[in-house]
Amino acid sequence: MLDLMTDEILTRALREDIGTGDITTMSTVEPERRIMGRFVAKEEGILCGTQIAARVFALLDPEVQTRFTVREGERVEKGQVIGTVEGNARSILSGERVALNFLQHLSGIATKTRSLVEQVKGTKAKIADTRKTTPGLRTLEKYAVRIGGGRNHRFHLADGLMIKDNHIKASGGITQAVEAARAAAPHTLKIEVEVESFSQLREALAAGADIIMLDNMSLEDMKKAVEIVGGRATTEASGNMGDKDLAQVAATGVDVISVGALTHSVKAMDISLKF
Amino acid sequence: MLDLMTDEILTRALREDIGTGDITTMSTVEPERRIMGRFVAKEEGILCGTQIAARVFALLDPEVQTRFTVREGERVEKGQVIGTVEGNARSILSGERVALNFLQHLSGIATKTRSLVEQVKGTKAKIADTRKTTPGLRTLEKYAVRIGGGRNHRFHLADGLMIKDNHIKASGGITQAVEAARAAAPHTLKIEVEVESFSQLREALAAGADIIMLDNMSLEDMKKAVEIVGGRATTEASGNMGDKDLAQVAATGVDVISVGALTHSVKAMDISLKF
Amino acid sequence: MLDLMTDEILTRALREDIGTGDITTMSTVEPERRIMGRFVAKEEGILCGTQIAARVFALLDPEVQTRFTVREGERVEKGQVIGTVEGNARSILSGERVALNFLQHLSGIATKTRSLVEQVKGTKAKIADTRKTTPGLRTLEKYAVRIGGGRNHRFHLADGLMIKDNHIKASGGITQAVEAARAAAPHTLKIEVEVESFSQLREALAAGADIIMLDNMSLEDMKKAVEIVGGRATTEASGNMGDKDLAQVAATGVDVISVGALTHSVKAMDISLKF
Amino acid sequence: MLDLMTDEILTRALREDIGTGDITTMSTVEPERRIMGRFVAKEEGILCGTQIAARVFALLDPEVQTRFTVREGERVEKGQVIGTVEGNARSILSGERVALNFLQHLSGIATKTRSLVEQVKGTKAKIADTRKTTPGLRTLEKYAVRIGGGRNHRFHLADGLMIKDNHIKASGGITQAVEAARAAAPHTLKIEVEVESFSQLREALAAGADIIMLDNMSLEDMKKAVEIVGGRATTEASGNMGDKDLAQVAATGVDVISVGALTHSVKAMDISLKF
Amino acid sequence: MLDLMTDEILTRALREDIGTGDITTMSTVEPERRIMGRFVAKEEGILCGTQIAARVFALLDPEVQTRFTVREGERVEKGQVIGTVEGNARSILSGERVALNFLQHLSGIATKTRSLVEQVKGTKAKIADTRKTTPGLRTLEKYAVRIGGGRNHRFHLADGLMIKDNHIKASGGITQAVEAARAAAPHTLKIEVEVESFSQLREALAAGADIIMLDNMSLEDMKKAVEIVGGRATTEASGNMGDKDLAQVAATGVDVISVGALTHSVKAMDISLKF
Amino acid sequence: MLDLMTDEILTRALREDIGTGDITTMSTVEPERRIMGRFVAKEEGILCGTQIAARVFALLDPEVQTRFTVREGERVEKGQVIGTVEGNARSILSGERVALNFLQHLSGIATKTRSLVEQVKGTKAKIADTRKTTPGLRTLEKYAVRIGGGRNHRFHLADGLMIKDNHIKASGGITQAVEAARAAAPHTLKIEVEVESFSQLREALAAGADIIMLDNMSLEDMKKAVEIVGGRATTEASGNMGDKDLAQVAATGVDVISVGALTHSVKAMDISLKF
Repeated sequence: MLDLMTDEILTRALREDIGTGDITTMSTVEPERRIMGRFVAKEEGILCGTQIAARVFALLDPEVQTRFTVREGERVEKGQVIGTVEGNARSILSGERVALNFLQHLSGIATKTRSLVEQVKGTKAKIADTRKTTPGLRTLEKYAVRIGGGRNHRFHLADGLMIKDNHIKASGGITQAVEAARAAAPHTLKIEVEVESFSQLREALAAGADIIMLDNMSLEDMKKAVEIVGGRATTEASGNMGDKDLAQVAATGVDVISVGALTHSVKAMDISLKF
Repeated sequence: MLDLMTDEILTRALREDIGTGDITTMSTVEPERRIMGRFVAKEEGILCGTQIAARVFALLDPEVQTRFTVREGERVEKGQVIGTVEGNARSILSGERVALNFLQHLSGIATKTRSLVEQVKGTKAKIADTRKTTPGLRTLEKYAVRIGGGRNHRFHLADGLMIKDNHIKASGGITQAVEAARAAAPHTLKIEVEVESFSQLREALAAGADIIMLDNMSLEDMKKAVEIVGGRATTEASGNMGDKDLAQVAATGVDVISVGALTHSVKAMDISLKF
Repeated sequence: MLDLMTDEILTRALREDIGTGDITTMSTVEPERRIMGRFVAKEEGILCGTQIAARVFALLDPEVQTRFTVREGERVEKGQVIGTVEGNARSILSGERVALNFLQHLSGIATKTRSLVEQVKGTKAKIADTRKTTPGLRTLEKYAVRIGGGRNHRFHLADGLMIKDNHIKASGGITQAVEAARAAAPHTLKIEVEVESFSQLREALAAGADIIMLDNMSLEDMKKAVEIVGGRATTEASGNMGDKDLAQVAATGVDVISVGALTHSVKAMDISLKF
Repeated sequence: MLDLMTDEILTRALREDIGTGDITTMSTVEPERRIMGRFVAKEEGILCGTQIAARVFALLDPEVQTRFTVREGERVEKGQVIGTVEGNARSILSGERVALNFLQHLSGIATKTRSLVEQVKGTKAKIADTRKTTPGLRTLEKYAVRIGGGRNHRFHLADGLMIKDNHIKASGGITQAVEAARAAAPHTLKIEVEVESFSQLREALAAGADIIMLDNMSLEDMKKAVEIVGGRATTEASGNMGDKDLAQVAATGVDVISVGALTHSVKAMDISLKF
Repeated sequence: MLDLMTDEILTRALREDIGTGDITTMSTVEPERRIMGRFVAKEEGILCGTQIAARVFALLDPEVQTRFTVREGERVEKGQVIGTVEGNARSILSGERVALNFLQHLSGIATKTRSLVEQVKGTKAKIADTRKTTPGLRTLEKYAVRIGGGRNHRFHLADGLMIKDNHIKASGGITQAVEAARAAAPHTLKIEVEVESFSQLREALAAGADIIMLDNMSLEDMKKAVEIVGGRATTEASGNMGDKDLAQVAATGVDVISVGALTHSVKAMDISLKF
Repeated sequence: MLDLMTDEILTRALREDIGTGDITTMSTVEPERRIMGRFVAKEEGILCGTQIAARVFALLDPEVQTRFTVREGERVEKGQVIGTVEGNARSILSGERVALNFLQHLSGIATKTRSLVEQVKGTKAKIADTRKTTPGLRTLEKYAVRIGGGRNHRFHLADGLMIKDNHIKASGGITQAVEAARAAAPHTLKIEVEVESFSQLREALAAGADIIMLDNMSLEDMKKAVEIVGGRATTEASGNMGDKDLAQVAATGVDVISVGALTHSVKAMDISLKF
């Protein structure tokens, strides 16, 4: 099932990287030569993307064998051998960069997510992603967030209702906006309202919002907001959370902390393939 | 011409973000409502991606007018208004996230590139990118590198010959590898050889390599290598250059410094749309 | 925005119908001839698909002008002229069949939906669609359901949690299944549980299900189930609802009645184009 | 060969139904769990689409085994087990809806076709389809018509010449239109002319039409028209044939009866998958 | 309508030729520079592909104006200016090669076709193409054949029945093959039988074949075959017709001469763009 | 790896040739019938495209076995059996034409290339292709040129810098154009300048051009130009080289002779499949 959903992305990436052909490899490596490489973590982190990396090689050449000895989501140490790839040398050399690009990017996201999840350990707060993802890679990036221990917010504009300032203005108020949304949307979706003040918060609660997004609030206000909500809705802290002390945010009692930086500012994890 | 090359990427991004429809906006904003928003830089940086952002809105709705008052490659200050978007409220609200995702990502790359370019100012060294790009976005990311003042390395495996360790082993030596590559490749491409020692360097020069990649060398070795080359080939410093003092690297006399971190570890520039 | 989402479907339909070219028209109609046609309802029904029909012609030829005098969702009478198309004769004759195929199919769905909505008028029950749609046309068919006055159930497996028999068995019980789903899914989605007995119903409620699907229950059982739920969850009646007396189903007090037949057994509305 | 032609349609259908992932199944069913299901006919009908249903599961997971014990085109009884699917539970649960949607839709068409074919049994009349098919599914729907015992009319505008009213007007008469068509079209295609009167009929015959479409004629007129033709051309009855008594139509002696309702108004055959 | 059918081909060709960008032009020509070029025929021939060439530029840049003063199908002389292109210099220089590649290829086919058509002038024989076309360009190449005055044979395996040796063997004889084909195929298609002897010819006629293909017959045999047919079917000469004296072939009385070389061995017509 | 790059082209070609189905074969050949065919060269030439032909059948039916006894690039004699295809009769008959179309076209290019390569044997001159390729087939055609013993020029506008007349005019001179190109392009690419006079040649050399294209020069001028260059750059002869005596051109001492006719005017090699 994974293949059906991701082969298009991987094939596009391979074509992007190979262009009209890997001329260096084609001219210097005999067609039948075999090779074996080891994936090595060059720094500590949370591994993610092993099936993707294996599939990249398989798409180029079904005979290539890729095996990882560490599972998705496990922590690896600097210098640790995490897997091997074995098979036709041309196929492996031509696919190496794309496989590593995915592995490093997704592991980078999982690693960042895990570190934030650990900051809020012991609280009920969940770390969630946003729609601030790299264009074309959202499904994979949100997968990496889950592998890192985070939670997914909505995938796109169709699978969650999020009423923001402009929607409120356009419909004449929070109450009207919530009613309009409830009347039009599938009954399977929750309604989230972004609030910036306590009066907005109270109106949203009265209107029956399922989730309240506390946008750019101070820690004190956030705490007070959580008290006002009193369990009647899910509370979500938002607004440059990547730069905040998340333990403190979690201590306010919010249910969810959504962090755009999980996916918009990714530091690739350094992983290499050694032959 | 830009549209022909990028519309496929932008359309895919819009479909990824909108899914089966922006139900919040459709249910709360009247069809004919108009809106005007200002793009605001929330931090200092180099702007990149304005045509892309404008095209994102145009693909959703040709009537939307997007205007930037800052040009690609110019520095913007924190708080600066850099452009406006005006038109149908539904179209703008539905396209906002995708437009910003591109703008922030590309500006992040341009900003990082510019900071490295400035580190080597006054030397002849050029800052270049690599193939360590985000899958699916290579053309755009390499564009952002140019906008930041950097130079592009080859785009893919077909438009540059780069002889690495495995190619050398497979063909029996640097000399043989260079000859094989020269015999097979278009005469319009240069041949680059990655060397790790002075003896490899000398062999590559003797074989007629056009470019010598000095891989993970110490500053002293790099300096000596540049002297050995003596202008007979282009020299390129490589290997975790993102973590090095590039002024020192440039001082060795290398022609090109290639930096994977320009594109594999991007910090999005914070830009928002205020209504 | 509509065009971005549907042009791919319409273009595919046009290519499917035109093949390598409309040879009859090309050989018998001069290139510059103009023509005007009237869309006529050959039977009573609810009109849907006018923008789609207009876009079909526009994709073939941007100069063709299509105008509908009846709006989406309005009832039209047998024999009523509902719109016109005017422009190049070749373009109109070549696009006629595809435009009508969409218009008739979507109006058929809207008409069927409206008739069921009217059956439950005066009750709180909403008529909803299912995933039993025609492959490739789900977004359009669900649009037609809305135009007919119905509500959309989830669009696909990713934007709603529906725990059925097999999920319950696999996870060891309703309670475990609901917990597993809640732990893994975006917090923006509701959890629906399909129940076949009162004991299952009670377990689902206790587990905190947001929606209870009453599957193939008798009217009496359904009524009792609604009482047991007592407003703690949304209730949804399901199971061959297309063959039932929906006024009676609605009288049980359920919130939603989901009907596969809205989209899996469509009778096209008879609409023709008269020149 | 089947796969080459249909995989694109099936893959699109799977992506449409799965979206970004079957979260219910992923969260409640262990990755290695196996399951076995039985396809059961919930009503009598003609089975069609078994290879398609099997391929749907195979595209998701090549390990899934689907076997049908009834062949395409055979009649199945209410309650009859018609096949099984066995394999990974996640794959089967995620593919179930799409497989059934195809199977029910195509069997619905085959069943309807068979019933009309039986109405004209004993006459020389053939039941044929039209271009009034569901956008995107024409090849599959026309396949179902053949399985039901019907005949295919042209697939699209390029593989048959059909001269209608507008073509006649534009070229100045039936004679001119037939000549123009004959001069321009491949010599492998027959020329069909739609006539509404006996004088048109005679002109079409004189012009050498290969097929005469008798459009919306009364039974008496149709009979007379067949006599006039006297075997010099194929005769085809057309015009709301879905609402007519086809035994009477066939009794007029026409060669072909084309019925849009075969594909534009399909009642899905009720088939389910029981675990 | 043309655009709908050909834009995909033209866009693919532009992407193939431009790759990741026309770096020579981008670096040496200012963004706003304008230019005017003249299309000049460097040899005599029949012009074809002017709309395609114009569309190539329009896809790159809708502002570019392309005008041809000679119409499709007209003869041009060596040195003749046949049109102009005017607009942004970058767009025109980047699109030039693709526009010319189409223009030269299609004009080459039209020119070759015309010369064969002229060889059989005064006879009833028509020159027709085959399925021996360049993969991916069949629709355009068959268009060029028509522009050159030739006729199209079937476009693909679905819009014509051609019973060859293997079909005859597999079905047990010509009679059986024709019957099987007639029973299965749309009634809008003619049945063609390839014969290599007079006995096969007689059997095909008796079976009611609409078209008889005389495969690799001598001129005398062909003449005799035409006499045997006596107007009861269309006769088509086939088999390396590109190497034959077509006037002699036509003199045998055949109706159609199909020539694979029209499209499988094309000599591009020399056309250039002068600035 | 081959499959990843070419399957899209082959699949498109198969769909183009099969359309909605090979009705002749489906109606006359039983589903399980097996067949064996021999590929026979009907004329002498250089074989190219065997993997492509085999893959065409494999895409239709993975069970079909295609084996070639002659390798790519080897010369075959008239009448020689060069390979076999064996398997399901329907699959083979339906794929035959596409497989042959590729085989004949690519072998035609390889044959033509080889004949030119032999004309310049004993000199240092290399025969190279151009961008005058058939739209959509460039990668395959350039592969055939290599198989024929030729060399590839740049693949597209992004992997080689070629400064022509218009670029020179736009940038104010050869010197400026070369400098602008060098400043903007990847350092992995060479810079080629097209010159028409000795003064241009000298300016290009002084500017540091890597390759000098001698455009439409007489043999004497070409010889003198080569002397002026004196090994400081690669020299390339260009301009209707398909019509010249290449031995004479090579005798001038040029390094590369680029010939558009290798790919723009291809005579298919006659190869057939005999059963």
